[in-house]
Amino acid sequence: MASPGSGFWSFGSEDGSGDPENPGTARAWCQVAQKFTGGIGNKLCALLYGDAEKPSESGGSQPPRAPSRKAACACNQKPCSCPKADVNYAFLHATDLLPACDGERPTLAFLQDVMDILLQYVVKSFDRSTKVIDFHYPNELLQEYNWELADQPQNLEEILMHCQTTLKYAIKTGHPRYFNQLSTGLDMVGLAADWLTSTANTNMFTYEIAPVFVLLEYVTLKKMREIIGWPGGSGDGIFSPGGAISNMYAMLIARFKMFPEVKEKGMAAVPRLIAFTSEHSHFSLKKGAAALGIGTDSVILIKCDERGKMIPSDLERRILEAKQKGFVPFLVSATAGTTVYGAFDPLLAVADICKKYKIWMHVDAAWGGGLLMSRKHKWKLSGVERANSVTWNPHKMMGVPLQCSALLVREEGLMQSCNQMHASYLFQQDKHYDLSYDTGDKALQCGRHVDVFKLWLMWRAKGTTGFEAHIDKCLELAEYLYNIIKNREGYEMVFDGKPQHTNVCFWYVPPSLRVLEDNEERMSRLSKVAPVIKARMMEYGTTMVSYQPLGDKVNFFRMVISNPAATHQDIDFLIEEIERLGQDL
Amino acid sequence: MASPGSGFWSFGSEDGSGDPENPGTARAWCQVAQKFTGGIGNKLCALLYGDAEKPSESGGSQPPRAPSRKAACACNQKPCSCPKADVNYAFLHATDLLPACDGERPTLAFLQDVMDILLQYVVKSFDRSTKVIDFHYPNELLQEYNWELADQPQNLEEILMHCQTTLKYAIKTGHPRYFNQLSTGLDMVGLAADWLTSTANTNMFTYEIAPVFVLLEYVTLKKMREIIGWPGGSGDGIFSPGGAISNMYAMLIARFKMFPEVKEKGMAAVPRLIAFTSEHSHFSLKKGAAALGIGTDSVILIKCDERGKMIPSDLERRILEAKQKGFVPFLVSATAGTTVYGAFDPLLAVADICKKYKIWMHVDAAWGGGLLMSRKHKWKLSGVERANSVTWNPHKMMGVPLQCSALLVREEGLMQSCNQMHASYLFQQDKHYDLSYDTGDKALQCGRHVDVFKLWLMWRAKGTTGFEAHIDKCLELAEYLYNIIKNREGYEMVFDGKPQHTNVCFWYVPPSLRVLEDNEERMSRLSKVAPVIKARMMEYGTTMVSYQPLGDKVNFFRMVISNPAATHQDIDFLIEEIERLGQDL
Repeated sequence: MASPGSGFWSFGSEDGSGDPENPGTARAWCQVAQKFTGGIGNKLCALLYGDAEKPSESGGSQPPRAPSRKAACACNQKPCSCPKADVNYAFLHATDLLPACDGERPTLAFLQDVMDILLQYVVKSFDRSTKVIDFHYPNELLQEYNWELADQPQNLEEILMHCQTTLKYAIKTGHPRYFNQLSTGLDMVGLAADWLTSTANTNMFTYEIAPVFVLLEYVTLKKMREIIGWPGGSGDGIFSPGGAISNMYAMLIARFKMFPEVKEKGMAAVPRLIAFTSEHSHFSLKKGAAALGIGTDSVILIKCDERGKMIPSDLERRILEAKQKGFVPFLVSATAGTTVYGAFDPLLAVADICKKYKIWMHVDAAWGGGLLMSRKHKWKLSGVERANSVTWNPHKMMGVPLQCSALLVREEGLMQSCNQMHASYLFQQDKHYDLSYDTGDKALQCGRHVDVFKLWLMWRAKGTTGFEAHIDKCLELAEYLYNIIKNREGYEMVFDGKPQHTNVCFWYVPPSLRVLEDNEERMSRLSKVAPVIKARMMEYGTTMVSYQPLGDKVNFFRMVISNPAATHQDIDFLIEEIERLGQDL
Repeated sequence: MASPGSGFWSFGSEDGSGDPENPGTARAWCQVAQKFTGGIGNKLCALLYGDAEKPSESGGSQPPRAPSRKAACACNQKPCSCPKADVNYAFLHATDLLPACDGERPTLAFLQDVMDILLQYVVKSFDRSTKVIDFHYPNELLQEYNWELADQPQNLEEILMHCQTTLKYAIKTGHPRYFNQLSTGLDMVGLAADWLTSTANTNMFTYEIAPVFVLLEYVTLKKMREIIGWPGGSGDGIFSPGGAISNMYAMLIARFKMFPEVKEKGMAAVPRLIAFTSEHSHFSLKKGAAALGIGTDSVILIKCDERGKMIPSDLERRILEAKQKGFVPFLVSATAGTTVYGAFDPLLAVADICKKYKIWMHVDAAWGGGLLMSRKHKWKLSGVERANSVTWNPHKMMGVPLQCSALLVREEGLMQSCNQMHASYLFQQDKHYDLSYDTGDKALQCGRHVDVFKLWLMWRAKGTTGFEAHIDKCLELAEYLYNIIKNREGYEMVFDGKPQHTNVCFWYVPPSLRVLEDNEERMSRLSKVAPVIKARMMEYGTTMVSYQPLGDKVNFFRMVISNPAATHQDIDFLIEEIERLGQDL
């Protein structure tokens, strides 16, 4: 813990005059904070009084340059005994840190100072009075600071400043009003686990170099398969770098299952293969087909109903059509939680069709998989247990830090046969332990980042019931939003009915458009509303929510809630903010 | 900085009796450490006296359980004013941390305690008296601790223990005697940057949600292209999840450049494509060909000379052979730094051949790319500037934490055309900033981890000259090893001559084999030597180095040096250790 007086770097406001925007509150808060024992009071207080973001705000195109100084000890004990008082970063370089001789002391001081900067950012991230984003246009940002790489080293004072500056311009993805992506929020245990992962700095391909992490992957994937409903949690799987790659794996394995000769002979040796997925599915299915040499033309997009769910009869019709042409249907990818509408395809009906035509059933539950943790909502994925493979991204609805995406496969050994190349220099067969734990040869990657530990540690900390509570709360918040806006003046829902996931899709119609007839001109004007409101949100930095067109529907807002920090008040705020920023349009 | 007395968790040895293995040294060290002002003295001292690894060593199948207690404040001030003294983790759960109301204080305490655990691990990693690995067989490790996931949450005391236990069983990849992989070492600035990346917790696909990181990727890739030698650093590129994926990108883009219709029509629409790479190249080329629907049979392995370099005349012969069969050569992947021998293919000769036959030239410099930073060694990659694409993994020779792999492409815009799917819900075309910074649509991934920041920050801290010094030092150490063993009794070099990279490949021949004739029996016995020595190394935990067979050569050691912590003494140690562990075989 920080020493009494161990300081955040305090640039600017060195006179302690406090938060210029709200000096009264800041001072009162600081008085409260000071009552905490030890360093936390100072730390919290420094958050209010010492503003690490100042140098660059005032810096213009100048890199921020405090006068060369000893480490910014803001200690109030004189004479100062802080270790920092003896560490002058202006004279230290990376070469003075470990493994340098006598490197322990500057290393501990430096890493602790980095940590102070990070802790300050973490606390700020959850503070509604801070901006979600301090927006700058790309050219501005490029010129605002010197980002260039040079021949000569910089000292550690400069390095610490770069850390602060980088965070100043970063998006606070943990901010309670950040709703922009399917992955939002910042989980403290997940963060701690990710720091540990970085510190362990290893690679997943063998048990030899990642013993614990390989076992934790084994344990965690098995648990996920149990939750999917595969008997005894049997099967296979891997953590991959994102849902798009997980989906590509599914396609790759499905193809191999049907035509193992494709591995050696390529697509030239097999008939024309066809994959089916809904028109609302994620673009990664097409991207995967392009990469795998299947071609995007061989991905048939199945029609959806008005709620964005795949229509099974259209699926069957298109399968028959493909077969009549002599093509071979090899994969159906159903979506459990579409990106925009949050729709769940009817998995049971899809499973019946896949069974009937002997087609690999994949479920892209990257976004919706989290609902399997909720007794209240898991029925939306009924039938997922009949899938041959499932993509499930804990970094989305379960709030695990980026990246954490799992591909689960029902049949054991298939991934290995599909991908193994038997590189003897990596996967020696005469090692002294059970080689079945060397997972590298079933991956497309050689080196593979440790993505499992943050999920595992969060799971221990929250329990399945903790994930359930988080998910139920997000779904409840989405329903709250839906209930407020469905009949509110100035809002139109993109589809009728209560959302199945946390996606709430709507247009905000400014007063000037409400009087117009529903014609092309109105559509054209409406299409410009969301982009302008979004741009203003980013410039004010108050909140972020995504918008997009879809099919014949012009730009609408897609609100999603996966952020554990969000509350009813934040939903209220969002609505008010949209109206504030859009009423003049 | 840590407060005076802010403690590491001190399990066991609470009586301060010190390091049982070496109590005198530990006590002396501790006395020195205490002279440091502030908390560092205590911290260093706690490293010696409080052994965080103890609980699990004694725990057997029981999860380690200290009696329920307040946070392990090891403060020597009584009455204790450490903030930890008021934080009882046994009664706290993840739900008490931010964003919970009043969550700041437990959050700061918890994260600081995690950080203390990590700092302790960092310092231990560089301590030659600690083990590189505390080896357990998979089944042992599965039973040694309860790793299972449950419905109910665990308290934060348990979570902190899991962090300690995980690190106890982790490999110390930064240890000066860890030589097992191409990626070794633990850079302090890189580590700090990776912690920051975790804290920022965002995704690379748009400028909107990763403004600074997207710009830093732009700046860094441009710099890398300049160093490769492409005029003005022009071109394209991306950080991808590892060298295997970078190589797959190269193959994908090369195919698209020649036959853009493959994106829609698949491999069925194009003639049979052939890729060429050396028999010593990385297995990812074949893996990529299998995935992309090209097929492993269409990857022709070109013969290497005795040093592992591709023979250009054989390349040309095989290209002609393929053309005569009506196949279309579309890619040559030359290797700059092979995995086992560290060989550099003759890039200029390969470039001439690629030019003559109009074939895409890729250079897999995942391992050797770092040498471009060295004025002394970069000649080994002469001709790389003529490549169409280059894989370069800063996480290998440049010591950047895992993962950090770049694919650089000479022609701008090609990646985008090859991979874009125009998903309007992600890459809105009516945003208010310059969309050329939205890099997501040129990637195969959708979500993409921020891999650039650690490289960028290290580059600022070391400068190009710092990387150069590191690389020159590693090469010098490899030469030192080579010079010692080339004529030493009991060693046989796998290939003659000074290593070009840091790979030194050799057999250790135990005394009992030195007298045998060079026949099959000797080979068979020799093949068992390296695996046994390696197993013993791991069980003692003293060092780790890799071994493998290659072609008709039985198991030999492949020593590689990328670890900035390694010294001449560590090389001496390795030799002695091999002899100690192998002399009875």
